[in-house]
Amino acid sequence: MLAGIDLGGTQVRVALARSDGQLIASFKTKTPLLGTPQRVVEWAASEIERNRGREKVRSIAIGAPGPIDVERGILVNPPNLPGWRNVPLAAMLRQATGSQVHVANDADMAGLGEFHRGAGRGTRNMLYITWSTGVGGGLIVDGKLHRGAHGTAGEVGHMIIDPNGPLDQCGQHGCLEVFCGGANLARETGHPAAELFAAAARGDKHAGMVVERAARYMGMALISLTNALDPEMFVMGGGVTRSWGLVQPMMLETLRSSPFIRPARRPRLRRARLGDRAGQVGAVEWARINQ
Amino acid sequence: MLAGIDLGGTQVRVALARSDGQLIASFKTKTPLLGTPQRVVEWAASEIERNRGREKVRSIAIGAPGPIDVERGILVNPPNLPGWRNVPLAAMLRQATGSQVHVANDADMAGLGEFHRGAGRGTRNMLYITWSTGVGGGLIVDGKLHRGAHGTAGEVGHMIIDPNGPLDQCGQHGCLEVFCGGANLARETGHPAAELFAAAARGDKHAGMVVERAARYMGMALISLTNALDPEMFVMGGGVTRSWGLVQPMMLETLRSSPFIRPARRPRLRRARLGDRAGQVGAVEWARINQ
Repeated sequence: MLAGIDLGGTQVRVALARSDGQLIASFKTKTPLLGTPQRVVEWAASEIERNRGREKVRSIAIGAPGPIDVERGILVNPPNLPGWRNVPLAAMLRQATGSQVHVANDADMAGLGEFHRGAGRGTRNMLYITWSTGVGGGLIVDGKLHRGAHGTAGEVGHMIIDPNGPLDQCGQHGCLEVFCGGANLARETGHPAAELFAAAARGDKHAGMVVERAARYMGMALISLTNALDPEMFVMGGGVTRSWGLVQPMMLETLRSSPFIRPARRPRLRRARLGDRAGQVGAVEWARINQ
Repeated sequence: MLAGIDLGGTQVRVALARSDGQLIASFKTKTPLLGTPQRVVEWAASEIERNRGREKVRSIAIGAPGPIDVERGILVNPPNLPGWRNVPLAAMLRQATGSQVHVANDADMAGLGEFHRGAGRGTRNMLYITWSTGVGGGLIVDGKLHRGAHGTAGEVGHMIIDPNGPLDQCGQHGCLEVFCGGANLARETGHPAAELFAAAARGDKHAGMVVERAARYMGMALISLTNALDPEMFVMGGGVTRSWGLVQPMMLETLRSSPFIRPARRPRLRRARLGDRAGQVGAVEWARINQ
């Protein structure tokens, strides 16, 4: 058997699957309820233990918020998990379960999920972009997850889109996330990003302008990424999928405005299909690939 | 045996190699002297024929300026080869030689050359950037040339670096090439780019400012590409290599100015080693890989 875990700031999800990747059962709970890394590991291990029957769980993959030392399976200092510092997650989970454990970036796992079981099925080259509180990504090259030389490929939220833009918390001026990330939009406007997008959809003018600016910047990122990577498809997940009808046409119009990207090589832009389950589904795939 | 051809606006180069990629001989001539596609093909085929001895040439790869229909081996309308329109280069060369023929992007071939035999040896993930009249690139992912879904990956010159920047001939505002490409710098300043870089190296203030601006924009592109791709190394070729001592520190300073790209994951930035031979060397490798 295999297990995939999606560790987020809000929820922890565990999925159990057969060794071919077929899901058998899944469980979730609230991360803050568990609180400490030790209790999160114990909860996940006990869910796996209770449900594996007589089967051995060969391989577990866990998607977690960055930055991650993927080689050693350590969560460095994830902003989404306050108080977690240099947590040796792979070692802890290995000790608790006896299985081999693979720690990966959460957006990479969601991208892998969408590639194998979601909107990206059938492609060979796609880029998953999560647009929520922050902006991240997972890159599929020639049918495989590409994590880069240090496990940080796909950090599309920190591409510089406008060098004269405001300073982001990452320390860079005018990165994609400073224009599009929900946390930054909330800070700028004084409204939660979900409310802002909802107001824009209702026709509120100011909200509409803010959302349109964000969508245009995202569209420019898609232009740059198309030129650098030539993917078949962008799959977009995260909170933005709830405002897809509003935002997708704006992004697409920007992408289409580039005469250099001729229609024949223009990637498709699709909404993610797996919703909140993308991370656990991708983690199961990652456990399968690395078993 | 194998052959690699580098077809540029100025020169055509042919290299013959053993089937393991070891170079045996190489030849070059001036493209405008030959003039037509038919005569270029005839010249290359006769050089190969005269020098192959009794060996059969199994596989030929040719790097040519884009845009290229790589599937069908057709040069669409390369700005660097005026008058060449929809030239079925693969078919022509196949007919003239009897060998299988692979047509590829010139920057991809140069990148492949630097990866296998030049500055990028020993890496698994690198990005070659050519900075000359134009700006292009070749992307190596996990030890292999990544051409993307339509053969246009690595078009880093047309990433958007500053959406408020001037309009480039590609039809986009503020792409990397409009700030850095030698043709654009010459148009802007009224001096050939080589003179501009030489004047900057001699301490000319205005030239220095123009070159520094270009280097800073290139550095920002390196930041974006590091975040998107996480390469081990950037290898830079083209005319800029003649001003490396001037330009490299500026690019590096910009790359280092990103606190988000921690030193442990910062790619190296190296000057290309193969000079004008990179394209033919890469084409031989491509012929070898695809034989």
